[in-house]
Amino acid sequence: MSDHLVAGIEPPYYTVVFTSRLRPDGDHDAYTETARRMEELVAGVPGFLGYESARTPGGLGITVGYFRDEEAIAAWRMDLEHQSAQRRGRAEWYERYSVHVGRVERSYGHVRAE
Amino acid sequence: MSDHLVAGIEPPYYTVVFTSRLRPDGDHDAYTETARRMEELVAGVPGFLGYESARTPGGLGITVGYFRDEEAIAAWRMDLEHQSAQRRGRAEWYERYSVHVGRVERSYGHVRAE
Repeated sequence: MSDHLVAGIEPPYYTVVFTSRLRPDGDHDAYTETARRMEELVAGVPGFLGYESARTPGGLGITVGYFRDEEAIAAWRMDLEHQSAQRRGRAEWYERYSVHVGRVERSYGHVRAE
Repeated sequence: MSDHLVAGIEPPYYTVVFTSRLRPDGDHDAYTETARRMEELVAGVPGFLGYESARTPGGLGITVGYFRDEEAIAAWRMDLEHQSAQRRGRAEWYERYSVHVGRVERSYGHVRAE
């Protein structure tokens, strides 16, 4: 998973917060490979603006996807390869997950001065 | 940092997505201690609903705070001990961070059947 930081995006846009816990007995290599493929695939969705991802080893994973509008989120949700990966995720990889779709009202940030 | 998962919350509520990268040369023990204190402190804010946190070792950290309304977010933002920790964070711990405040439109989840 990438560890880049998404830079300032002008509203309107949406955050899709995906938090998950993996099953300890899942096939982590297959999961990682599929996660990489999804990152590749989502990048082609019109209105996809970027994502950020972190996972505490043995603990919680959080991925935040940034999308321009609901149409972009819907296009990603309806992607057939993505749907197939989701089914496999529910069957094999995830202990549990939750998704929160929010319309961003404001954002700000800080970069350390050199 | 806790690795619990926040369970289903009924809208309206907000997500505050905080993504950060730590300075490699920062005092990680002091950072961890302060982060723990902030978790304790935010729990006392009326309208605070929970949070989730993940950090890839040596990489990105993402914390998502869930708040009932803007008043709850403002109360947390104006907390003096929190403001002091933020100043120290900018001065000593963070390479960079970004914050995205979103009003949640919908949420859903999945829990593995036993």
